[in-house]
Amino acid sequence: MALSYSKRMENIKSSEIREILKVTQKPEIISFAGGLPAPELFPVKEIKEISGIVLDEMGPESLQYDITEGYPPLRQQISERMNKVLKTELTENNILIVCGSQQGLDFSGKVFLDENDVVLCESPTYLGAINAFKSYEPQFKEVPTDDFGMIPEELEKILKTTKNVKLIYAIPDFQNPTGKTWTLERREKFMKIIEKYEIPVVEDNPYGELRFDGEILPSLKSMDKKGLIIHLGTFSKTFCPGLRVGWIAASEDILEKYIFIKQSADLHTSSFSQRIISKMLENYDFDERVSRLKELYKGRRDLMIKTIAEEFPDGLKYTNPEGGLFTWVELPEKYNAREFLDECIKNNVAIVPGGSFFPNGGHENSFRLNYSNMPDEKIVEGIKRLSKVLKEYLN
Amino acid sequence: MALSYSKRMENIKSSEIREILKVTQKPEIISFAGGLPAPELFPVKEIKEISGIVLDEMGPESLQYDITEGYPPLRQQISERMNKVLKTELTENNILIVCGSQQGLDFSGKVFLDENDVVLCESPTYLGAINAFKSYEPQFKEVPTDDFGMIPEELEKILKTTKNVKLIYAIPDFQNPTGKTWTLERREKFMKIIEKYEIPVVEDNPYGELRFDGEILPSLKSMDKKGLIIHLGTFSKTFCPGLRVGWIAASEDILEKYIFIKQSADLHTSSFSQRIISKMLENYDFDERVSRLKELYKGRRDLMIKTIAEEFPDGLKYTNPEGGLFTWVELPEKYNAREFLDECIKNNVAIVPGGSFFPNGGHENSFRLNYSNMPDEKIVEGIKRLSKVLKEYLN
Repeated sequence: MALSYSKRMENIKSSEIREILKVTQKPEIISFAGGLPAPELFPVKEIKEISGIVLDEMGPESLQYDITEGYPPLRQQISERMNKVLKTELTENNILIVCGSQQGLDFSGKVFLDENDVVLCESPTYLGAINAFKSYEPQFKEVPTDDFGMIPEELEKILKTTKNVKLIYAIPDFQNPTGKTWTLERREKFMKIIEKYEIPVVEDNPYGELRFDGEILPSLKSMDKKGLIIHLGTFSKTFCPGLRVGWIAASEDILEKYIFIKQSADLHTSSFSQRIISKMLENYDFDERVSRLKELYKGRRDLMIKTIAEEFPDGLKYTNPEGGLFTWVELPEKYNAREFLDECIKNNVAIVPGGSFFPNGGHENSFRLNYSNMPDEKIVEGIKRLSKVLKEYLN
Repeated sequence: MALSYSKRMENIKSSEIREILKVTQKPEIISFAGGLPAPELFPVKEIKEISGIVLDEMGPESLQYDITEGYPPLRQQISERMNKVLKTELTENNILIVCGSQQGLDFSGKVFLDENDVVLCESPTYLGAINAFKSYEPQFKEVPTDDFGMIPEELEKILKTTKNVKLIYAIPDFQNPTGKTWTLERREKFMKIIEKYEIPVVEDNPYGELRFDGEILPSLKSMDKKGLIIHLGTFSKTFCPGLRVGWIAASEDILEKYIFIKQSADLHTSSFSQRIISKMLENYDFDERVSRLKELYKGRRDLMIKTIAEEFPDGLKYTNPEGGLFTWVELPEKYNAREFLDECIKNNVAIVPGGSFFPNGGHENSFRLNYSNMPDEKIVEGIKRLSKVLKEYLN
């Protein structure tokens, strides 16, 4: 008996990364494939303490149904943090709490995209966003990018000649998968263009606070004069992912639509998780926490880039990210990273082939490496194993 | 500037209940409008203890990203509980953990419904399901129901004459909003029909364990020879809603589709919430907990029904539910519950007008009352206030 599923299910497959992660859970494999934050810095002790305080002080309220928008003190704290760090001008009424920023991506598709509408994204872009948007059956157009971000002239060329562009998706800071960051000049040019065409933009910012070098650049949201920017944030990388708390920051008009969607999607985000995070922000020094994370990740990035420079065969291009969790490697065009993934696994090291990050395919000569989730000695050993496979493959 | 939202947003409004709840939060109002479980029985002390145990024993793992399907021991525990109580034959591979059964409703729409597909439901049916399905732009056909459940002959008549029926939605136990329960005979006839037409069915069962009178009847899932039943369960009514943990039980083929959707919707349900509930099931007596809930709610139902019998004007019809959280009142056809809602609020008592529970409108001569969330003296006082309004309105 063959059931009749919705048409969208034809587009929806399991994420390739999830499938690779299943293969790479054997302890002997050094996996650069995932995107996990470092568990050794999770605030386990603090969350234990805070869980008790939340239940003692708030009692049953912390376990009851809650308002869809989110726990008001947490919305307030998030708006204040964004105003301080990202130079926005938001109030709690601009914030909706969601179950991780992945839910913000899914809702963005739901709010804006009908079948065959066009969504623009960087080329390459985050695989999880591609999969979330695919549920709404859009066409993807990839905007060419270089080391400074989305290329404004290419964006405008597409906007001039493409009907039904309903949404632009961008990760200006430490992009997943490339680790690249848009320059200030690029941000300014981008804002001028989208204000001219009045296209809403999802600014995905999961790693924004994790900048190792230089100063945090103004977020697109801070430059948003027309209320076009929908900013996605999360505590997954700064506290821990397992509580599933992220947020959407947008104009009240747009946010209202997301609130309707949240209500019918799952009523609200965990009352308990929200109160734990709110109390953590109140009782602990968040800046100090972010500093420790940056120090750890900076060390791991430095070591990975140094080992790559020493070990990789000549002629490969790779990014040296100023923050975030990933670096991105490009082989000469005739090569294909999927071809040597099996060899990698046989040599007990794992990567994600880059092709997955291009919604319209191609670009198989690239791969992504994660450095946040791996102790130093494994970074060195893993890059050595990978270099061996690469040298054999490229010969 | 008017942004261009997706077409589905035209159908999606804030739930009427949520709007009423906002008005009725004043302490002087006795509200029968919500559907909240009794907070005085939330396991606050136990969750405090268990949170500590989870973090001590499992450490960072309980705060890390998790597999999409859910925490394997919890999936195992749920399948065993269902097999024991609902007479199913499931394994952990039939269970996907979701953020409350509301998310199961949204995913069901996503997996099965394209624009203009037909979804069948009881008349009336749960408002939250109507709103979740509306995101996928289907047509609703309401199947007539009586005191014994969905009427099989009416269902078959519709299936015979309607194209594109993709999904049936049903709440066989203590239905929201009516409190009615399908008889065993009706369940058997229903299964024969849907097996003949091979239509998938969402069996929504949030209150199934909360039966005050008689024995639990076999779930549709336990009679499911062809793998057509998608069963939704939740801990919101038996533990507490604030952790947002529910589940979908289905054949592995169907469940795979839901897992893809879960992955792109929010990656996974809170690792921490799932481990808390799993440990609660391991360390505490769940049956004893359910017994206490049933005792409390049975007392409240008895009192509400007795007070209604004593106080309401003659000639009104109301259900005497064998379990769950709600009773349902019908006025003679010419009356309209929305007309006297304002009077109710003025007299500091709140109800939900029944019209909201009919996806195609009409039936305004009904309303829903909740008894689970109110101490005895307020039930008596609230029903007296409501009776006064009704008597004035009906004259």
